[in-house]
Amino acid sequence: MDVGGTTIKAEIADAAGEVLVADAVATPQGEAAFDAMGELGDVLLSGLSAADRGRVARAAVLLPGIVDPVRSIAVFSANVGWRDVEVGTRFSRRWSMPVLIEHDVAVAGWAEWRFGAGQGRDTVCVVIIGTGISGTLSVGGRLVRGGIGQAGEYGHIAVRRDDGLPCPCGNTGCVETVASANGIARAYRRRTGHENIGAAEIFGRMDSDVDAKAVVSDAVAALADGLLGVIHAVSPELIVVGGGLAGAGPTLSERLHRALRERLRVVPAPEVTIGRFGARAGLAGAALFARYGALV
Amino acid sequence: MDVGGTTIKAEIADAAGEVLVADAVATPQGEAAFDAMGELGDVLLSGLSAADRGRVARAAVLLPGIVDPVRSIAVFSANVGWRDVEVGTRFSRRWSMPVLIEHDVAVAGWAEWRFGAGQGRDTVCVVIIGTGISGTLSVGGRLVRGGIGQAGEYGHIAVRRDDGLPCPCGNTGCVETVASANGIARAYRRRTGHENIGAAEIFGRMDSDVDAKAVVSDAVAALADGLLGVIHAVSPELIVVGGGLAGAGPTLSERLHRALRERLRVVPAPEVTIGRFGARAGLAGAALFARYGALV
Repeated sequence: MDVGGTTIKAEIADAAGEVLVADAVATPQGEAAFDAMGELGDVLLSGLSAADRGRVARAAVLLPGIVDPVRSIAVFSANVGWRDVEVGTRFSRRWSMPVLIEHDVAVAGWAEWRFGAGQGRDTVCVVIIGTGISGTLSVGGRLVRGGIGQAGEYGHIAVRRDDGLPCPCGNTGCVETVASANGIARAYRRRTGHENIGAAEIFGRMDSDVDAKAVVSDAVAALADGLLGVIHAVSPELIVVGGGLAGAGPTLSERLHRALRERLRVVPAPEVTIGRFGARAGLAGAALFARYGALV
Repeated sequence: MDVGGTTIKAEIADAAGEVLVADAVATPQGEAAFDAMGELGDVLLSGLSAADRGRVARAAVLLPGIVDPVRSIAVFSANVGWRDVEVGTRFSRRWSMPVLIEHDVAVAGWAEWRFGAGQGRDTVCVVIIGTGISGTLSVGGRLVRGGIGQAGEYGHIAVRRDDGLPCPCGNTGCVETVASANGIARAYRRRTGHENIGAAEIFGRMDSDVDAKAVVSDAVAALADGLLGVIHAVSPELIVVGGGLAGAGPTLSERLHRALRERLRVVPAPEVTIGRFGARAGLAGAALFARYGALV
C-alpha cells in the first residue's frame, strides 16, 4: 500500500510480482486516512480466493512525511495532516498478518536501486521526481538512512536562494521549486499562459517550442546544481531518475548527464539512467519490501 | 608519514600516541619525492634505540592527490607532480616492515571521526580545511569510500559559479576558492592590500576589523552552501571542521552552525565542532592507521 497526498493505492502481488488484485481510494485528510487504509486493505483481501488469501504472508504500508518504522509511528505528514499516529498493531490485527510501515520514498528508491535501474550497483543515488523531489542514497551496497533526519532530501537544497521561488518548506529556490513535475508545469504556465500541460508533455514539446526548451533546461540545471553536493561527497557510480518524471525518458537522463559533466572537474560524472518503475516505484517497492521484510 | 605539497612530515609513535622521534624535509617535485620519503624513514628509524626499533610494527605513508591503496599505486598528484608511481614493496623492503599507503585526507578525516572530535558518533562529515578543502563522510559507523572517484571532495563544489574566482581545477567559484585558508588570506589581501596575514589571524581580528569580518562571513557562507548537498543527502549528526583552520576555534564552528541553521528547513542542522588534531590530523591519523591496519 502506497499512501500519497491525494490517493491511497494498494495491490496484492505474488512472489513473481504478478498483481492479483489492485484498488485505490482518495486520501482523506488527517487521521481518517488510517481508517481508509484499513478499509482498502479489507477490500483487497476479500477480493482474493480462499487459497490466495492463505498465501498472503506480509503487508507493507508506505507513508509520506516523517515515519518511524522501528517504533511504528507515523510521525508527521504536512500533506495529509497527521502527527504522531501510533500505527502499532492496528493493521496487523485487522488483516491478520505482519504489517511493516516505512517511508514512501525510502522504499521507492530502494526498489529502484535493488530491483530496478540500479540493480547490481553499489553506490547509487536515486532521485524520485514527482510533485516534489526526494530520493535515496546507497553507499557500498547499503541504503543510507538519515543520521538525525531523513536522508535523500535532494528537493530541498536551495540552489536559487537569491532569485528563486518560495518553497512551502520556508526556503527560497529549493531544487523542487524548479525541477519537480509541479515546478516544471508552473514555469511553463508562467511563460506561456497555458494551463493543464504536464511536465512529461513539456519534455515532448522541446524540439518545437522555445518555452518548453527553456523550462526544461532550467529544471535540469537546478537538478544538476542540487546533486553536486552528494556527488562530491560520495562519488556515486550511478544516478537513477525515478518517479513520474521518469516518463520523460532519455531526454531527461542525457541532459542531466551533460549538465553534470559540464559542472564536474575533480570528481567523475556519474552515469545517469531512468528508473525502471516510474511512478509505480512506491507500489512495486511496497510489495518487494513486504516480501523481503527489510530494506536490504 | 604525511606527504604534503611543501613538506614531508614523519613521526614514530608508541601505542599510547607518545612521539618517540619526529622529523620533516621539504618535498622534492616529482617522483624524487619517493626517495625523500625513503630517506626520511631511514633517518627516523636510525634515531631509535635498538629496543624501540624492534617494537616498530608497521608504517603508513599518506599521499596527496589520487591514491590506490589496494594496488599500492600513487595515481596522481597535481601539487607534487607524479603520475602512476608503483609504491609496491619499495618502503617495506627498505624499512623491513609492512607499509600501508593511503590518501592523506581520508586518514586525517578518519582519525578525527574515530579518535578525535567525532568519536562515538555514527554519521559524521569531517571537513579538513587548510590550503585546500576536502574531507570524509562516515555513515552508519562506516567510512564512505568513493564509488568511482574520491569521496569527500567538498572543496570543489562550485557554489559561486556565476561570480566566483577561478579554481585551479578548472571550475569557477569552488568552495575552496572562498573558504580555504588560502582563499581567506587572498580575499583579505585583495580588500586591504595587507600581505602575509594568515587565515587564523584574520579570524582573530574579526571584532575590530570590518574587512576581516566580511572575509570570514563570506568564507563561512560558501562553506555552508557547499555542505547543503551532503546534509540533505545523509542528514549527518555532526560536522567536524579540522585541519589548519581548526585553529580559528569556536568562532568558526559557531558561525558555521548558525549559517547552516539559517539555510535548513527540512533537515535538522547538524552539530558543528572543531577537530581535535588540527593540522596534525594527517600525522596523528597515520600513526593510528599504522597501528590499526585499516580505516575501521
